[in-house]
Amino acid sequence: MKIPTLDNIKQAAYRIAPHIHNTPVLTCQALNDLTGANLFFKCENFQKGGAFKFRGACNAVFSFTDEEAKRGVCTHSSGNHAQALALAAAKRSIKAHIVMPENAPKVKIEGVKGYGGKVVLCKPTLRAREETAKEIREKSGALFIHPYDDITIVTGQATAALELHERINNPDIIMAPVGGGGLISGTALATHYLAPKTKVIAAEPEGADDAYRSFKSGSFVPSETPTTIADGLLTSTGNITFPIIQEYVSDIMTVSESNIITAMKLTWERMKIIIEPSSAVPLGVILQHSERFKGKRVGIIISGGNVDLRKLPWQSDNKER
Amino acid sequence: MKIPTLDNIKQAAYRIAPHIHNTPVLTCQALNDLTGANLFFKCENFQKGGAFKFRGACNAVFSFTDEEAKRGVCTHSSGNHAQALALAAAKRSIKAHIVMPENAPKVKIEGVKGYGGKVVLCKPTLRAREETAKEIREKSGALFIHPYDDITIVTGQATAALELHERINNPDIIMAPVGGGGLISGTALATHYLAPKTKVIAAEPEGADDAYRSFKSGSFVPSETPTTIADGLLTSTGNITFPIIQEYVSDIMTVSESNIITAMKLTWERMKIIIEPSSAVPLGVILQHSERFKGKRVGIIISGGNVDLRKLPWQSDNKER
Repeated sequence: MKIPTLDNIKQAAYRIAPHIHNTPVLTCQALNDLTGANLFFKCENFQKGGAFKFRGACNAVFSFTDEEAKRGVCTHSSGNHAQALALAAAKRSIKAHIVMPENAPKVKIEGVKGYGGKVVLCKPTLRAREETAKEIREKSGALFIHPYDDITIVTGQATAALELHERINNPDIIMAPVGGGGLISGTALATHYLAPKTKVIAAEPEGADDAYRSFKSGSFVPSETPTTIADGLLTSTGNITFPIIQEYVSDIMTVSESNIITAMKLTWERMKIIIEPSSAVPLGVILQHSERFKGKRVGIIISGGNVDLRKLPWQSDNKER
Repeated sequence: MKIPTLDNIKQAAYRIAPHIHNTPVLTCQALNDLTGANLFFKCENFQKGGAFKFRGACNAVFSFTDEEAKRGVCTHSSGNHAQALALAAAKRSIKAHIVMPENAPKVKIEGVKGYGGKVVLCKPTLRAREETAKEIREKSGALFIHPYDDITIVTGQATAALELHERINNPDIIMAPVGGGGLISGTALATHYLAPKTKVIAAEPEGADDAYRSFKSGSFVPSETPTTIADGLLTSTGNITFPIIQEYVSDIMTVSESNIITAMKLTWERMKIIIEPSSAVPLGVILQHSERFKGKRVGIIISGGNVDLRKLPWQSDNKER
């Protein structure tokens, strides 16, 4: 496998620059005081489409020749990749066919449609999704873009860490959540090139710890019946992302559901920014294993901010947290 | 009355600079598309203490001589001013006595205590508050700092608009919510000096439209039985703020409760930032009277982000908004 070079990542950054936000890096004294660490939050929740996913999708869509692009693009996703690809395709004025499970949240389906994506509903199984996407590709010739197990996607996601390293010099640690592994592998590569002494730590929910178990055992473990509020982190790592994680990530650490919720609520309350549960996983790890982060300068990639505001994890909770 | 000069405002900015955040100015393509206006949000929800109030409180506390400061400060407030004054006093290492109604939200009382403020509870009437504050002043010699009807406070609040004008040149309109009038009168003065052609529009809930009625009738109307979700805007304008509003504010516009909630939810969903209901009032006015803002460059001061996350206005709403 040919991993993305620093030049590839810089080219991706240049390619997507006209379309994306160079998102701000925020700090918060209250969270620094609480954790004893010095935290820098790269706010991809402010990215277009509400998540880092737009970087990869944009890089993929704008990497095609005009001839290729005409065929349109296609994916299956019920999450942020669906909206990101629809939006990126709209920017290039090409068609995006998005296969979504029929039980996907209405707000996500509407989001894809709002960006001009063509939604195709299917039964809520991985097999139905893959078959439906295959049919579309065969019929329309659309180019399939995997949510994470794709070199162009990984290279696009790496641009978030590239921007973070432009803002903070040689942090001790860089953290990102790990689900399929697109974000963390891009982050690890960019950090390997730009700040080789910086440790890259992937953060994962205890209830969906397939990447942790894969990493610790040295061989791929699939995600089976994951249970976590961090709905962006349910998937298994891939053929491309897992080897990159094995080589370039320093460690994977896990966190309990209650610490994910505490971290999410703290971020909302103290930073006044809206982050989705998956984005709270790195701060949750820091809260749960604080001794390891005390006195350290830590960059954290906030992956996204797409939350159903009517269903918040602390809503059914009548106790004071 | 001697109104603050541009020099006074600049001196205040210099005085408080070591203590406050120069908050970011954010834009949002989705909200621009929706309103047809070009909006610039000055994010005082990211200010220390979670609201613009810290600017005025800091200016007041750091304007005292060492001799005066030793006496400590005192106020009555159940809102953002209480926390702001406690925090400002802590920065100068002096005592802050904060009189709060015994039915104030526990989270606000804890907030004041968290900043080291000395909380004195009283019956939940304005009379009880004023009498309790008077007793404290007489007993301790503490200096009383009114939440808004105080020249030093108004001058401090003016620094938010000063910073906004440093970021955007001659906007067509600047908006801020009006409650007691500290923020809007500071904003109007700074704009008068720095961008005299810019119109200053105060935004007020229909259910608490005392400033609107005062402004339109030309004589002070007190706030009686106000009913609005915008709990920072319940108070009447003051002897200092109302005359400044009369002279330097171009117009006051009102907005319905449902448009305030829509504006608040839109800001959370599309900008991914947490704002309190009072802060949504200007955007609510724009949604309700959109024809007046189309094509205009509008600066909006987001006043704060202190919200009880367990009681959100759309929580009891089962319809899709």
